[in-house]
Amino acid sequence: MVRTVLGCEVGRVTPEEFRQFGHRLVDWIADFRRDIDDLPVRSTVEPGWVRTTLAAAPPEKPESPEAILEDLSKVIVPGLSHFQHPRYFAFYPANASLASALGDMVSTGLGSIGLNWEAAPALTELEELTCDWMRELLGLDPAWKGAIHDTASTGTLVAALCARERASDYGLDRDGLREGPPLTMYSSEAAHSSVAKAILLAGIGRSNMRLVPVDSAYRLDPEALARAMAADKAAGRRPAAVIASIGATGAASVDPLAEIIEVARAHGAWVHVDAAMAGSAMILEECRVLWNGVEEADSVSLNAHKWIGTVFDCSLLYVRDTEHLVRVMSTDPSYLKTHRADDVTQYRNWGIPLGRRFRALKLWFHLRLDGAQAIRARLRRDLANAQWLAAQIEAADDWYLTAPPMLQTLCMRHEPGGRGSMASDARDAHTLRWTEAVNRSGRAYLTPTILDGAWSGRVSIGAEPTERTHVEALWRLMQDAATDAGRSS
Amino acid sequence: MVRTVLGCEVGRVTPEEFRQFGHRLVDWIADFRRDIDDLPVRSTVEPGWVRTTLAAAPPEKPESPEAILEDLSKVIVPGLSHFQHPRYFAFYPANASLASALGDMVSTGLGSIGLNWEAAPALTELEELTCDWMRELLGLDPAWKGAIHDTASTGTLVAALCARERASDYGLDRDGLREGPPLTMYSSEAAHSSVAKAILLAGIGRSNMRLVPVDSAYRLDPEALARAMAADKAAGRRPAAVIASIGATGAASVDPLAEIIEVARAHGAWVHVDAAMAGSAMILEECRVLWNGVEEADSVSLNAHKWIGTVFDCSLLYVRDTEHLVRVMSTDPSYLKTHRADDVTQYRNWGIPLGRRFRALKLWFHLRLDGAQAIRARLRRDLANAQWLAAQIEAADDWYLTAPPMLQTLCMRHEPGGRGSMASDARDAHTLRWTEAVNRSGRAYLTPTILDGAWSGRVSIGAEPTERTHVEALWRLMQDAATDAGRSS
Repeated sequence: MVRTVLGCEVGRVTPEEFRQFGHRLVDWIADFRRDIDDLPVRSTVEPGWVRTTLAAAPPEKPESPEAILEDLSKVIVPGLSHFQHPRYFAFYPANASLASALGDMVSTGLGSIGLNWEAAPALTELEELTCDWMRELLGLDPAWKGAIHDTASTGTLVAALCARERASDYGLDRDGLREGPPLTMYSSEAAHSSVAKAILLAGIGRSNMRLVPVDSAYRLDPEALARAMAADKAAGRRPAAVIASIGATGAASVDPLAEIIEVARAHGAWVHVDAAMAGSAMILEECRVLWNGVEEADSVSLNAHKWIGTVFDCSLLYVRDTEHLVRVMSTDPSYLKTHRADDVTQYRNWGIPLGRRFRALKLWFHLRLDGAQAIRARLRRDLANAQWLAAQIEAADDWYLTAPPMLQTLCMRHEPGGRGSMASDARDAHTLRWTEAVNRSGRAYLTPTILDGAWSGRVSIGAEPTERTHVEALWRLMQDAATDAGRSS
Repeated sequence: MVRTVLGCEVGRVTPEEFRQFGHRLVDWIADFRRDIDDLPVRSTVEPGWVRTTLAAAPPEKPESPEAILEDLSKVIVPGLSHFQHPRYFAFYPANASLASALGDMVSTGLGSIGLNWEAAPALTELEELTCDWMRELLGLDPAWKGAIHDTASTGTLVAALCARERASDYGLDRDGLREGPPLTMYSSEAAHSSVAKAILLAGIGRSNMRLVPVDSAYRLDPEALARAMAADKAAGRRPAAVIASIGATGAASVDPLAEIIEVARAHGAWVHVDAAMAGSAMILEECRVLWNGVEEADSVSLNAHKWIGTVFDCSLLYVRDTEHLVRVMSTDPSYLKTHRADDVTQYRNWGIPLGRRFRALKLWFHLRLDGAQAIRARLRRDLANAQWLAAQIEAADDWYLTAPPMLQTLCMRHEPGGRGSMASDARDAHTLRWTEAVNRSGRAYLTPTILDGAWSGRVSIGAEPTERTHVEALWRLMQDAATDAGRSS
């Protein structure tokens, strides 16, 4: 529809034009997902290629759907590594289930924003409902109240801020962090980088951050934690928070939560549980032993957008004391005061952003269209696949695991002369050579990691379409790549 | 597709099922947008109704598309206030252009995550490209580098953290905020609530936050700022940041940027320009006088998801010194090190979250399918509509504007006996009565605001489908509602 106003064309995509192009894009997406197996898993483009291949100047006049579709297929798709590929074993599973994608499409189409309850009551209340659904599926107590954030990085920052304010008796209302004893925060050496980032952004300072040593399974050592906290207290500092990892990124290691909480409680420190990745597994009753003690924590974050597979971004943050959360995060300007302000949840006071996308829709669609049973079965399939691959590695000559296999993440090395036969530099070079050869082949994608100061291969199983045959193919590829790399060095 | 694994059904929505339901949802969205005029603008549901009307327990088995479609139409849509409605005049325009909605659909379908460049080169490079397109359309210097964040609340927090670290010479690497002189931060009394929130979350403390008085047009008074900064410096504190508002939320007032920057520069303070709302207008050359001096600021945020109309969330944050940004925000764990890490942008080091949605696609689709010319023409249409309404109000008996009309936001009062005839309590009650009557009618939606301690009506023009006829209808409705309210009181 184009009208002329003040001598200019006022055009925009109309509902009918949306309908037509929308149908084509649904087909384009369905074809992309159906045929994804044929694409190289890791993108093969050079830095700058996408940018320089696309038009440099912003368009003054409308362009055609055809021009955009061509760029999508010829530039955008080759310019992506494919997280939804059956032979994707990199970083962590980040499934974008098509059930949830449908819900997200509706969210975008509705164009709602949750500034407060009144602006979008259904957005608020469906977020409450779906967070409760997930809480129930995770086996958590009804005392936990959840909200959807973008990422666990943000969740950890919110938790660190809440901890800071509790330990300082709301220093934000006075002189910030300058009064009282210095606050200290604790996590493990193996914790995700976002933990240190949250502590530093919260203003705690690197000199008050403690990355506690881990045991041989890369789990935080609770005795070392107890010693560090006691030493800080004796030195006049105040332990404010401990961030425990349930599935730390490197080797998916799981900190001993119950013991950590016991130590933290003795100092009144906030306990945040970063279960961003492995939290998904807690929808399986048999895995819940891994976070024994969670009910005594202050906050828990886990990403529905990882292994569970609600399309990014959908990170859940649960807290027990919502009043404290609101006191730290709330704002109440007049233009957000509304006629039903008191008896409803105002999610803007539960996190950092004011504006809020209708993210609950994708979680709701996902759980309703796939059903919890099927999601659980898929996670069990992935665990069985990881156990199978771990067994192959343990049985194979010249291969060994470098961390106890946790859930669906495996870390391993290959040494052509057998374990311990290579100097560490040569072994690092060999590890990086064979993993890069796997990735360069386009037939699988895995991301190596440093454990104990040395490189390991790392396989993270759990892409939605990954079946046993794909894991078998990966294992053959790893063996061939390692043999070749051993020969060429 | 359903397979049996470990005795359980592993099912998920397949590409073919996505195709079928996707087509239905595209039609559903197109119909919703086409017929939106028939819906009440503000939701009429009671608190709790959505929540209690929907199923309480998470589904174990897959449900049908029909069940979901029925809930969408019967529960979700009535449970929303409609930002995309032609008679939406509340908060601020938050347009979800259908052009951008198509791009967002593709983003969701691709299921990409920008953890680093290698994970999604096209995601990174299209974000660079579209941020540059917007920079060019806004008339900003090429020295500005942009990234897409969720909201301007987050952008302001990032700016406050950057300012804190610059003023403390990277205190985060030492003792946080405990060393050196206390840092102070400044904004205006009229600034958005997210500004105070950012300063407090950054750990500056309320006692070091200065909300500087405004003039009669609700603009920060630069002389008062200069006095406050000089007093703080004399008292041993260090002015670290000034946050200027280009379009403060209440009356869309515009701070005198050039004068503010001159004052701030004398103290070496970071200047962040919060142009979340009115930044949209800067794609019109004739409006750029409003942010004269912007080139000398340190950071600027503006929301493409407001008046411009790229579907939420799409908040742009531009900075001049990306090296400083990266030093404050960066993390470099081994599992994110990749084979092309050095010569590419790593956006994770430009903000708080690690994971990154492919948000550039919606901005790219929006600009390509609608074209810059049409977007500019639409904004000029809205400005003309606001000028028309302002003229009606100024000409009408018993009505007056309570702030100089800025851009597309008007603040007004009605007093049945003429301006100044009512006691302030009675006038507040009258204002809240007639605005609530407008909203309750379902035929328009506006959100009153407090200016100078008293309630004003507030009309924010600029929903994408809002034409002159809709503004005329609003004006009749306001007059009728005010007359009725005057009679009944």
